[in-house]
Parts: sequence; structure tokens; C-alpha cells
Amino acid sequence: MKVCYDGLEYSGWQKQNNGVSIEEKLEECIYAITKEKVKVVGSGRTDAGVSAMGQVCHFDSDTKIRPLNLAKAVNNILPSDISIIEIMEVDENFHARFSAKKKYYRYSFYVSELKNALLDKNHLRINRVDKKAMKQAIEQFKGKHSFKAFCSSGSQVKDFEREIYDIFLEEKDNVIELNICGNGFLYNMVRIIAGTILEVGQGKIKTEDIPKIIEKEDRNLAGKTLPAKALTLVSVEYDKYL
Amino acid sequence: MKVCYDGLEYSGWQKQNNGVSIEEKLEECIYAITKEKVKVVGSGRTDAGVSAMGQVCHFDSDTKIRPLNLAKAVNNILPSDISIIEIMEVDENFHARFSAKKKYYRYSFYVSELKNALLDKNHLRINRVDKKAMKQAIEQFKGKHSFKAFCSSGSQVKDFEREIYDIFLEEKDNVIELNICGNGFLYNMVRIIAGTILEVGQGKIKTEDIPKIIEKEDRNLAGKTLPAKALTLVSVEYDKYL
Repeated sequence: MKVCYDGLEYSGWQKQNNGVSIEEKLEECIYAITKEKVKVVGSGRTDAGVSAMGQVCHFDSDTKIRPLNLAKAVNNILPSDISIIEIMEVDENFHARFSAKKKYYRYSFYVSELKNALLDKNHLRINRVDKKAMKQAIEQFKGKHSFKAFCSSGSQVKDFEREIYDIFLEEKDNVIELNICGNGFLYNMVRIIAGTILEVGQGKIKTEDIPKIIEKEDRNLAGKTLPAKALTLVSVEYDKYL
Repeated sequence: MKVCYDGLEYSGWQKQNNGVSIEEKLEECIYAITKEKVKVVGSGRTDAGVSAMGQVCHFDSDTKIRPLNLAKAVNNILPSDISIIEIMEVDENFHARFSAKKKYYRYSFYVSELKNALLDKNHLRINRVDKKAMKQAIEQFKGKHSFKAFCSSGSQVKDFEREIYDIFLEEKDNVIELNICGNGFLYNMVRIIAGTILEVGQGKIKTEDIPKIIEKEDRNLAGKTLPAKALTLVSVEYDKYL
């Protein structure tokens, strides 16, 4: 299934003791329709407050309900901020997490002295920034690096190497979107990269220091972790199906 | 002031006995900051559920607070779905309603068999339509006409003549936006025009019948009034300032 959600009201993708997760809402509503206690497996977690335009997940089911009808029935009972946007039967060896090849994330800013009520829910408001410097800074992140400096403590990961295939800024009117595509992302990695690039735009970090920040693997040298609300999981790519 | 709002939770722009209006929220919050009981005058009403990216309004005030600081202070106490996005001092003869020259509205659709939780709040979900036919239909609305067939009963207006300066479809991925610019709009006029154009796309109304529908001034011949949630007042134009 391809699923979209507004993460604002949720404790994140993954089930946990405190708060309501996207995963459990999907499982609850699939159970209500099929009476099967399925385990929904996502391409990866998204944190509390993070939204998704195209999270991908799979589950095993023996239901006789046709996929499209199942999705319609589940959508009818899901909360209004979660929905299934695509559904199909896949091979048994497809795995939403292990088969994922690329992930696209977007971090969204808007430049304004005054709050914009329509943008503010899922964009971070910023003052004017040096976009040319930001564009130069972005180039430094491309390729395979240890991204330990861009990983929040609390992560249990031991291999910090990830590859960024593409990273670019898109601008329209007063909105600036930072798009990142990679083979995988560490805990808070996109939010810390976005924070670092923003601080370059604000003149707090120099473009030429970024290779050093990457190399030193020191979280304290990178920019702040920006708020979750402006982060969106745009899509997940697989060799097959998507 | 230029104001934006998500109309979902409101009974519309104008104050009324039942429900909460945008106008009264603005007046309340301006009062809380300036202690002045101002009358906020909008460029026109928007109906319950209709949103605005750029509604324009004015008020008279003797406050010593500088406009930008006033807007920031008011934004701090406004509900999260309303905000002032621009503010400036204007001539005494500026009037948000009487000085308005053009208004831009947008009606937003998305084409999908399944609900999209991110789009569904302010887009109308539709099945596949004949976009070529819709584009031809649109042309028939341009210019000066009596739009009585596209005005809901309950309106107290007597002059139904309005001029549409521009009307066009914009498409991106599965989203279709109907943009209309005119010198003024009758009660529900944009939602009925959008409904008529949609019915052309669905093959229920023929493009060549539109001039007849306009001419006959019969509301029953035009399409349905589409839901408010997908309508947005994009901007209002004046000779001066905006």
C-alpha cells in the first residue's frame, strides 16, 4: 500500500506505548474490515509530527476482499488525516523495508516576517536567507559519507554510512523546499541536514566548513535539528512495482 | 491587511448569530491588542468552509502601534488557522470592498479512485474526466454576461451582470485547478460554474449548451453547486497598493 498522512496528531509511524501511531490506526481499520490481525510493515519509521505523501507498507492477508475495495472500505473508517492512496497485491518476497531502494524526503520553509496560517502547519517560517550560499552548501552532501554528525544521539545504529543520490532546492514564490533522495537516512538526519543548510543561509555556518563537519563526525558541529512539522516523506522507490 | 485562513472551522467571513466568523476573530484579536473596537471591512464575504490565501480588509484605527508590530501581536493570539500576512497604512479613501477591481478564485479537484488525506481537506475528489471538453467549456464563460443561471437563490442582488476577465485550468500530477478572475462574483457563482464545468467533463452537460444556459438565466439548467471546502479566494486586486 502507498499511504499518505498528516503527522501532526500522531506519535509517529511506529506503534508505541504513549500516543497514537499511524501503523496502529492502519492495523485497527484493516482488522475492522477483514477481521484479520495483520502486521503492517512500513518502509521505515517517520517521527512524531512528520507527514508522508507516499509512505509504503505491506501486510500479509488471506482476505477475499479485492484490494481496491479493501482500500476504499479502510479509508472510510480511517481518521481524516490518514488514507491509502494506492494498493496492489505483491510477490511474497516483496518487503516494504528491505526491498526499498531510494527514499525521497522534503523539508519545507517559507520566507516571511508574518506567519501564514495556511503554510505554517507544514512549513517552517524563516527570515530572508542567502539562497546562493545554501545551494552551494547542498552540493557538499552529495555522495557516500559517514553521516554521524547528522544523526541524533539515541540512535542504535552502528553503521553511519549513507549515500545521498540527489539533493536540491526548489523555490516558488516565498516557499523554499529542500529535496533529498538517498538510500536511507539516520535518525533525524534530514532535519539536521536541513538545519545545517539553513544556518549556512543565515551566515552561521560556512559552506566550506561542511566537509569538515562531515569528516569530524561530531553532532555538535552540525546545525540544529529542525521541527518535525515541515518534514515530509515524499516517496519510496523499489525495483519492482513503484 | 491581507489575511489568509483555512475556512473549514468557520461560518464564513461575515459575522452572524450562529457560528464563528473570520471577521469577528480579527476584530476580537485587534481589540485585545489595541483596546479599540474596530470594524474590519472585507473585500467581500466568503461562505462557510471557503478558504482564502489573500482576502483583503481594512479598518480605521488611532493606535500608535506600528502596523507590522500590530500584525505580529494579533497573529500571536489569532487561532492557528487565521493570520495576517501583510499590513500597511492606506489613504482614508481606500475601501477594501468598493476599491476592489478584480478578484481571483480557485476551485481545486483531484482525480483519484482513492481518497488522499492530504488533498481531501481542500480539494474535491473526482473520477477521470474529459479535460479537453472542460477546457472548451471554460471559454464560453469569458466576458460580460448575466450570470443569473449561476447564482444561488437567496441572493438579494438585482444586477446579475458580471465580467470574467480570465478563466483557465491548471494541471499538476492528478490535481486540476480551475482559476477564475472577474470584477465580482454572485452568491455561489464560482461553485456553480465549477460544477457546470465538472459536469461537462463528466459528459452530463455539453459544451455547446453553455451559451444557452447563460442566456436562459435558469439556475436549474446549470451544474450543481460544488462543496465549499475546495474553493479558495486567491487574491483581490486594487489600483493602488496591491
